Amino acid sequence: MSLVSVVGLGLMGGSLVRDLSRQGTEVPCWSPDPEETAAAGHLPGVIVADSPYALASGCDGVVFATPLGAVRDLVPRWADLTGGSASWLQDVASLQAPPLDWARAAGLADRYVSAHPMTGSEASGFGASREGLYQGVPVFLSHAGAFEPARSGAENFWAGVGARPVWVDAEEHDERMGWVSHLPQVVSTHLALAMEEAGFSPDDLGPGGRDMVRLAASSPAMWRDIFGHASGPASRALKVLAERLHIEAERLASGDAEAFVLALERAGRWRKS
Amino acid sequence: MSLVSVVGLGLMGGSLVRDLSRQGTEVPCWSPDPEETAAAGHLPGVIVADSPYALASGCDGVVFATPLGAVRDLVPRWADLTGGSASWLQDVASLQAPPLDWARAAGLADRYVSAHPMTGSEASGFGASREGLYQGVPVFLSHAGAFEPARSGAENFWAGVGARPVWVDAEEHDERMGWVSHLPQVVSTHLALAMEEAGFSPDDLGPGGRDMVRLAASSPAMWRDIFGHASGPASRALKVLAERLHIEAERLASGDAEAFVLALERAGRWRKS
Repeated sequence: MSLVSVVGLGLMGGSLVRDLSRQGTEVPCWSPDPEETAAAGHLPGVIVADSPYALASGCDGVVFATPLGAVRDLVPRWADLTGGSASWLQDVASLQAPPLDWARAAGLADRYVSAHPMTGSEASGFGASREGLYQGVPVFLSHAGAFEPARSGAENFWAGVGARPVWVDAEEHDERMGWVSHLPQVVSTHLALAMEEAGFSPDDLGPGGRDMVRLAASSPAMWRDIFGHASGPASRALKVLAERLHIEAERLASGDAEAFVLALERAGRWRKS
Repeated sequence: MSLVSVVGLGLMGGSLVRDLSRQGTEVPCWSPDPEETAAAGHLPGVIVADSPYALASGCDGVVFATPLGAVRDLVPRWADLTGGSASWLQDVASLQAPPLDWARAAGLADRYVSAHPMTGSEASGFGASREGLYQGVPVFLSHAGAFEPARSGAENFWAGVGARPVWVDAEEHDERMGWVSHLPQVVSTHLALAMEEAGFSPDDLGPGGRDMVRLAASSPAMWRDIFGHASGPASRALKVLAERLHIEAERLASGDAEAFVLALERAGRWRKS
């Protein structure tokens, strides 16, 4: 069984560590958070290292389960340390083009894979992690010239925790995320703020409304990193939606409900498709 | 134990019938849908009537669990038929000022209460109904001069199915719903359509995005009725949100992520409050 290190013990890294521990393998890991390392340290097989770089030798694979900014800092440092030891390195920072650029600049492109499991949540930290988080979840993988052992290693790793790896183009992936991930996040955030300014509290909402503002509790640090590196796709998607809502507001102000009914019929067919 | 009739066997009416049946009382009811009446007819104590008006006599209370348009049609007809028999009448059509107007016009104001249980869903029909739907749910009640037996009758009825009745002003309630119910519905619908037009399917979304387009599967007929009677509050709320999203799109286009991070921090505090 291959040995995989996990750097970062939040929702993503913590859940990986739980799955690997459950499989009966040793799991070297590291987190900057002493509470998270203490909690993870109780799991069978988990070995907490003194620094992320102490994990550099003897591992078949390494997962950087950190926000994007930490990936940017870790990758070049890692290049200095690992030599040829790990056969693959991956991040799970959700944007893929920036990590691949950093891997290329650090001379690690031949064994670097950027991974994005589609299982985000507004929750964060080891406390939110759980066994089986990746079960049945699509994981988008991209690379910038990774050799075969790295590619199959990354793929097998995700299949091993029950996920469904799918190879994609990094640039296209990041553009898509502007629509399917970043846009819902921005909308949820501003819906929450608009309601707050109008004097409402979350308790005033029904179940539908509550679901719509759930993402508003997401990690600001994670989104600072994402939008710090790629705010263009989200901006373009948001412009389209804002224009739609503006037009609908005008229609409803004029008492025209029929256009909304048609919109809802079409949206319902899409939603159930 | 008092006898309550239920007109309409969708999510709301069907769930009421299940709760009343469970309590061991007889439940006279009616629905225009033969499949729904057949399904409800199997529950203990449920008596399916030939027409909604056949329920007019001998009941202590009547719930119109129909869309708003059907409430508008039923209320005047009911006034001709009931005489003094039922001590209260209620609807659950979510807007409250229009039903109270109709009740007043029909001379039923002294025993009419408009009710809005905050437990909507994108699902509809008897198939989506369930026992315990109202458990712990706030139910907003308003009236336009209902006498004491009607007011306490309505209150006790909801308490009897586990809900938490709260008296409100009808006009204020309808204005609030523009924010906490209608706005999330419109946003979810247009988010779904924007994604569809950009070429995405619901399967492309992660869990957060899927929650954001869940309401897009809501009943078009129900929303035709709601916005046909009150689209002003939703329009005003929507205008505020569209403007917010427009400004954020501009900021993200210029690469300014910091403003969004501050927005997310504030939204998170609100969400967790």
